Amino acid sequence: MTAICFCWAGVWWTPHPQPPTQTNTDFIFVDLLPAKNGEEQTIQFLLEVVEILTNYIRKTFDRSTKVLDFHHPHQLLEGMEGFNLELSDQDTLKYGVRTGHPRFFNQLSTGLDIVGLAGEWLTSTANTNMFTYEIAPVFVLMEQLTLKKMREIIGWPDGEGDGIFSPGGAISNMYSVMIARYKFFPEVKTKGMAAAPRLVLFTSEHSHYSIKKASAALGFGTENLILLNTDERGRVIPADLEAKVIEAKQKGYVPMFVNATAGTTVYGAFDPINEIADICEKYNIWLHVDGAWGGGLLMSRKHRHKLNGVERANSVTWNPHKMMGVPLQCSAILVRERGLLQGCNSMCAGYLFQPDKQYDVTYDTGDKAIQCGRHVDIFKFWLMWKAKGTIGFEQHIDKCLDLSAYLYNKIKNREGYEMVFNGEPQHTNVCFWYIPPSLRGLPDSEERWERLHKVAPKIKAMMMESGTTMVGYQPQGDKVNFFRMVISNPAATRSDIDFLTEEIERLGHDL
Amino acid sequence: MTAICFCWAGVWWTPHPQPPTQTNTDFIFVDLLPAKNGEEQTIQFLLEVVEILTNYIRKTFDRSTKVLDFHHPHQLLEGMEGFNLELSDQDTLKYGVRTGHPRFFNQLSTGLDIVGLAGEWLTSTANTNMFTYEIAPVFVLMEQLTLKKMREIIGWPDGEGDGIFSPGGAISNMYSVMIARYKFFPEVKTKGMAAAPRLVLFTSEHSHYSIKKASAALGFGTENLILLNTDERGRVIPADLEAKVIEAKQKGYVPMFVNATAGTTVYGAFDPINEIADICEKYNIWLHVDGAWGGGLLMSRKHRHKLNGVERANSVTWNPHKMMGVPLQCSAILVRERGLLQGCNSMCAGYLFQPDKQYDVTYDTGDKAIQCGRHVDIFKFWLMWKAKGTIGFEQHIDKCLDLSAYLYNKIKNREGYEMVFNGEPQHTNVCFWYIPPSLRGLPDSEERWERLHKVAPKIKAMMMESGTTMVGYQPQGDKVNFFRMVISNPAATRSDIDFLTEEIERLGHDL
Repeated sequence: MTAICFCWAGVWWTPHPQPPTQTNTDFIFVDLLPAKNGEEQTIQFLLEVVEILTNYIRKTFDRSTKVLDFHHPHQLLEGMEGFNLELSDQDTLKYGVRTGHPRFFNQLSTGLDIVGLAGEWLTSTANTNMFTYEIAPVFVLMEQLTLKKMREIIGWPDGEGDGIFSPGGAISNMYSVMIARYKFFPEVKTKGMAAAPRLVLFTSEHSHYSIKKASAALGFGTENLILLNTDERGRVIPADLEAKVIEAKQKGYVPMFVNATAGTTVYGAFDPINEIADICEKYNIWLHVDGAWGGGLLMSRKHRHKLNGVERANSVTWNPHKMMGVPLQCSAILVRERGLLQGCNSMCAGYLFQPDKQYDVTYDTGDKAIQCGRHVDIFKFWLMWKAKGTIGFEQHIDKCLDLSAYLYNKIKNREGYEMVFNGEPQHTNVCFWYIPPSLRGLPDSEERWERLHKVAPKIKAMMMESGTTMVGYQPQGDKVNFFRMVISNPAATRSDIDFLTEEIERLGHDL
Repeated sequence: MTAICFCWAGVWWTPHPQPPTQTNTDFIFVDLLPAKNGEEQTIQFLLEVVEILTNYIRKTFDRSTKVLDFHHPHQLLEGMEGFNLELSDQDTLKYGVRTGHPRFFNQLSTGLDIVGLAGEWLTSTANTNMFTYEIAPVFVLMEQLTLKKMREIIGWPDGEGDGIFSPGGAISNMYSVMIARYKFFPEVKTKGMAAAPRLVLFTSEHSHYSIKKASAALGFGTENLILLNTDERGRVIPADLEAKVIEAKQKGYVPMFVNATAGTTVYGAFDPINEIADICEKYNIWLHVDGAWGGGLLMSRKHRHKLNGVERANSVTWNPHKMMGVPLQCSAILVRERGLLQGCNSMCAGYLFQPDKQYDVTYDTGDKAIQCGRHVDIFKFWLMWKAKGTIGFEQHIDKCLDLSAYLYNKIKNREGYEMVFNGEPQHTNVCFWYIPPSLRGLPDSEERWERLHKVAPKIKAMMMESGTTMVGYQPQGDKVNFFRMVISNPAATRSDIDFLTEEIERLGHDL
């Protein structure tokens, strides 16, 4: 029962002219600006916040700062248990992970773009909602123009079609399955899955698990999602798709949806879209391209050929928050045929989307969404595009791919490294095992693989505890744990790549 | 082909020491901090941004500032067409809607909490992702502790159960339907809806349209969502529910899910949860409480009785971004039985959720979600709770309900007003028609209602064009367009309520 007010930056904040007094509760109400005479204090408070944040940003880009200050859950919880909120706001940043650090390579989304960040600060200050033009006029129009631009880049004539920003690639992929179902079996919307025959979906064994989540959630069932074989680089084998489509039809099932991945999560593989599109056209199947990770390459004249055929897709997922460095979250689902998104999701709720408003209500896009309230994800992206231009994104993407080629060329023949698959990486993913000296002499045996399986987790654990860098690892199919290096961080340089390999060698040497 | 760099606050920004030069593209790449010697410029840039934002905030709370500066879509588009990005960043705020203005009453989410805003700024600077403890250690723990606290407030013993923050109430409600289906028919996850009998869902005719969206998306079909009759205050009639459950069973269907709304969108009605829970227990049906709008009242000792019985629910949606003033987006789905969320959604993607990490991986909550990447929605809420305390939220909620009682008492017998239903509002929703003098003498005829139907849209259009205040209107069932006043804005006072009625009378007088 302590009477405290609110601590930020080592200063106690209270809107009351008097010092805090004991009450029968734990806290004193602080509302800053709405309080009388709260203005000066509010601005002062926000400036203190900004000072903390700019210090954080400065340090994030300083290579001598740790990427993280690792603590186990129980250690952090000691300071938080019982909701006593002892953890201060500076600790929140202190114990967090610096995802913008030049040596953070752990996820597909890395980096901290300052213009994008400014966009987020403005967005949260505007604090509005995307469902109607009425309350988000500028953002709704920005979304519309940006989606059109993205469709032009995909290659749909005049940028025609439709789309919406959604809370992440998994939801964008879910949209694609829903829209495909609506296109072929619109009566499912009203009558449920009982109105359709047994529908089957196809995706690569290397594809993102969101396709599987969607097939479970939307009522298809994961057993009706058929996994496609891939070549050793992780790309779908088109002949396998056709064989499985024919097999499904022979069983009386209806092949409805194929997902082709442009940039798989682990290998960074690009499925051959044109060959897959041929099969989809032949059998009248919806073709979705999951370009959550690889879609950004469409901005690069040098690399966009990897998505050749994308313009033949019926829908595309594309996450600017991954390869294009836009702050989280920013994911688009783009649809070639106009009207499907609306038809699939609209429920015409009169209380939200009144047809008798004074402006052109076709700009009210909310009824296309499966959400009601929808966060403004567009502004940071718009602002970055404005700042960098298309060429700025292209330069960023080309630079990241150059860096990954540098890493690949550096380690492909280096002692102590073994590539998971042969050949230049298609995306920035470089997949490799580090072989500690103690394993180098061993014959290719089960024992060797078992021991190698434990190497990456051990190195990763030491890496996190020393806080110097972060890179992901995972098994895949019959391959034991290996490192997956990915580069999307605009701050990374060759020296950071060199640092990563040195660090792996330092930490793994005696394993 | 103009060579420009990036304009913010009237200043051109470029990371290059040289002035911008002509290139063969429209823009020059600007990346600020990662550029050499970019540090000073970055901090300077962010401080300029903050100056714009603090000026915006100052004005937002100034009643002499307009709520909006209305322009039609085609007018705004003139400045944006062809993606030439002429619209400057200050214009973005200028043409936006000030949702924090004390006279903005248009949505369920209003207000601009400064502490919450600071939380958002920090969140976007941290720019991380909720799927693993590994990259969001502090936020993941904060989410866990906050969800437990919310479950304690609901009344589940020791705060046991599960939950997750989702991108809005519609998705939270969708989760509830998915989880209920998994509880009763887990085989649907793998085999699809064909593995279940014909399932039916029940919800009020006044409930939020997201229940209908979920029934379409998840493969039930909207025809299998049965709408329940309500009393004249918009509350579900339990006898109607029981009759419809029995009828469905007689047809051989399986009643699976009932949604009870705590705070309907338009009337602000609270369905009688205890009576509905009795029926759900009797027939073994999942009970979900959609407290997206009304859940906040659980924080108020005076008003929480309106949700009596909520502890009997199997799942609860509760949006702190509505009645509790947390910035958008912040919505929780809470589940009484532990394990269902995980069981329903997990796909065990080895590349994301490695079991052999060095920390306790039960803290990796990502596989419970239908999303993969997930925005950090928790920190602003945590920070506000820390600042205000539970009592601060209670004071805010009690004050908003007092204000709506003030409005109700003011207009219930006032000339020119007609209440849509009788009796004190249960939530802050006050629903009324304004009757212009020209309609006051008319008999209760079809003509009168037809004319009245046009009054609210006309007043609203004039209101938006004058930019003085904003309030929503809609029809509901057989009721023609009426105003729905809602109060969740901490900055609103009685004088703002008085202003609203004066403004309606001023604008509507000559209609």
